[in-house]
Amino acid sequence: MSTPRASLILVRHGQSQWNLENRFTGWWDVDLTDQGIAEARAAGELLGAKGLLPTCAFTSLQTRAIRTLHIVLRHCGRLWIPETKDWRLNERHYGGLTGLDKAETAAKHGDEQVKIWRRSFDVPPPPMDQGGPFDLSADPRYAGIDVPATESLKDTIARVLPYYESTILPELAAGKTVIVAAHGNSLRALVKHLSGISDADITGLEIPTGQPIVYDFNDALVPGERHYLKDR
Amino acid sequence: MSTPRASLILVRHGQSQWNLENRFTGWWDVDLTDQGIAEARAAGELLGAKGLLPTCAFTSLQTRAIRTLHIVLRHCGRLWIPETKDWRLNERHYGGLTGLDKAETAAKHGDEQVKIWRRSFDVPPPPMDQGGPFDLSADPRYAGIDVPATESLKDTIARVLPYYESTILPELAAGKTVIVAAHGNSLRALVKHLSGISDADITGLEIPTGQPIVYDFNDALVPGERHYLKDR
Repeated sequence: MSTPRASLILVRHGQSQWNLENRFTGWWDVDLTDQGIAEARAAGELLGAKGLLPTCAFTSLQTRAIRTLHIVLRHCGRLWIPETKDWRLNERHYGGLTGLDKAETAAKHGDEQVKIWRRSFDVPPPPMDQGGPFDLSADPRYAGIDVPATESLKDTIARVLPYYESTILPELAAGKTVIVAAHGNSLRALVKHLSGISDADITGLEIPTGQPIVYDFNDALVPGERHYLKDR
Repeated sequence: MSTPRASLILVRHGQSQWNLENRFTGWWDVDLTDQGIAEARAAGELLGAKGLLPTCAFTSLQTRAIRTLHIVLRHCGRLWIPETKDWRLNERHYGGLTGLDKAETAAKHGDEQVKIWRRSFDVPPPPMDQGGPFDLSADPRYAGIDVPATESLKDTIARVLPYYESTILPELAAGKTVIVAAHGNSLRALVKHLSGISDADITGLEIPTGQPIVYDFNDALVPGERHYLKDR
């Protein structure tokens, strides 16, 4: 590709406290670990070293993604660019599994059932109990938003893609270098769309943490191959 | 005052590297020191402890203010609120004094002259040399902005106030709890306006670093007395 019209950088947040504890997280607001902070810093330094400098940023309403964005931007000297946060970039809502230990859940429900919940395209986990310890429907951050009780990957895509098309794509059309700091499943939604991955294959595609993924867009606003910035 | 319609929280960034080194800073982009980080953290914890939780944030395009905002918001659990950055909230541009040691400058030009530059309402310091080491007119963060060569406090007010009226005031009218993380002189501009301070008196008014100043607004959108949150 010749000089791209625009570039899209996707960064999955670094390790969170519940990644470390091996618990289902979803919309629960867990902070980064020291390792997660270091991953974000390395991602920012890589952007600086490669000279791929964002001019516009998007993230979710979740601390681990917002902090990842701030650390990345700080370490490539771009803390000053405009940033927009939206719940549509949140992680997939894990329903009634939120907060549970993954190993205990597998022991209780069986590996097969957990695999279906984690890796099925359109089967959501059981819904979250209303009023339970992880119920976020009264959280002021989600005021005015119909907080889901659970989500499949398909449900997640159904909120991520319209947001991408209405809000992120116009920035690419304007020639911006856009960074999106988000989560495994909200980024899967974007990668599925941009790389044309099937429903069956997308659930097995791993998005590595803290590793910038880049799409260059040509003049017709068609994305090229996705690549890791480190390999460029 | 009964329950306010809205509140405005002003926070001056904590100590920066050049505050520590006693150099004129202005628009030059200097980071916080460890003490500055601690001041921001304490401000965030105070907001949390007092239950005054921002719902909307504004800051400048300068790292020391942006980082102060992020640290404050993190420590009161509000990292997820919308945030807008604008050059109109930048520090006063210190012109040709930018980067100079304050003591050396006083030795060279005399205390009286430096006092005029620092404390006069409408006398700007000498303009910055074009193409000098601190010239920011080619900085991509100021693309499309007519970077001043120098500013008096009056000049600073002339850009801060229209921004306040067009962009911040509507959020207060909408009942938001607005936080502005900015600089000594951009905050002086706001305090002068909101507290009705004269041209002669405003230049001597110190805005302490990392100490949240609060204005409550009544239903007619008239600000009450300014007070420090710590005294509330």
